[in-house]
Amino acid sequence: MANRHYRRAVEADLPELVRLLADDELGSRRELREAEDQRPFRDAFHEIDSDPNQYLLVVEEDGALIGMLQLTFISGLARGGLKRGQIEAVRIARHRRSAGVGQAMVEWAISRCRDEGCGLVQLTTDRSRTDAHRFYERLGFEPSHVGYKLNL
Amino acid sequence: MANRHYRRAVEADLPELVRLLADDELGSRRELREAEDQRPFRDAFHEIDSDPNQYLLVVEEDGALIGMLQLTFISGLARGGLKRGQIEAVRIARHRRSAGVGQAMVEWAISRCRDEGCGLVQLTTDRSRTDAHRFYERLGFEPSHVGYKLNL
Repeated sequence: MANRHYRRAVEADLPELVRLLADDELGSRRELREAEDQRPFRDAFHEIDSDPNQYLLVVEEDGALIGMLQLTFISGLARGGLKRGQIEAVRIARHRRSAGVGQAMVEWAISRCRDEGCGLVQLTTDRSRTDAHRFYERLGFEPSHVGYKLNL
Repeated sequence: MANRHYRRAVEADLPELVRLLADDELGSRRELREAEDQRPFRDAFHEIDSDPNQYLLVVEEDGALIGMLQLTFISGLARGGLKRGQIEAVRIARHRRSAGVGQAMVEWAISRCRDEGCGLVQLTTDRSRTDAHRFYERLGFEPSHVGYKLNL
């Protein structure tokens, strides 16, 4: 078994994280265009990194960065003052897909949400990502909601 | 036209906010049970209130609290370092429903997201809330995602 390590992202990971975001069926169109200018990514990284309610997770295997996801902890009044953990930006390096890395990473994230006092973990995934739907349903997630987006 | 006013929630609004959360087809089962103990709501309120990336909005009409929603601003690396605005806990007082209050309130929230530098506004709504689906689609939101939840 490979030597797998979970940790908070640091600024030096940024070029690798941007590559991971671009190396993705939906992301490729979006991310590669913008990747030439690293500044927006650096600014966003610093906002995430300085926010105690955000945790940008990276997964390393034998020293190589092979996965990422972003966790946001959201306190709320609904459901008796329930805190939610929200997962975004889940990406696995292409050569390490379908090898259980995603499952291990999401399970790590769920456990981190539990430690943070969350009573619910939530995420949305594009309607077209049917592999992702099967993946999250296997992990116990219920497709109970419709996810709406409005571009500004 | 009623004298409508949008502002950040304060702690003194809490009993009224808990009533709004309970007075709701899905919330009634969940919220009323817990409403006897106000402490979890107060703790959650302080976490929201002290977080610069959260904005708990209340709407008053002629001095009465008639609506609420929670905004969370989430910086991210995806989509070129795009910041998202997320809407949760949208509630309108029963006697003021179907009167344009919800639309005005969500439009206020979208405008606040724009001021905050967000490039996207997102929310999820229960699959069973078909009125809510029509409402958000009228406002320009696209039902592009599936919203997954996992109770811990």
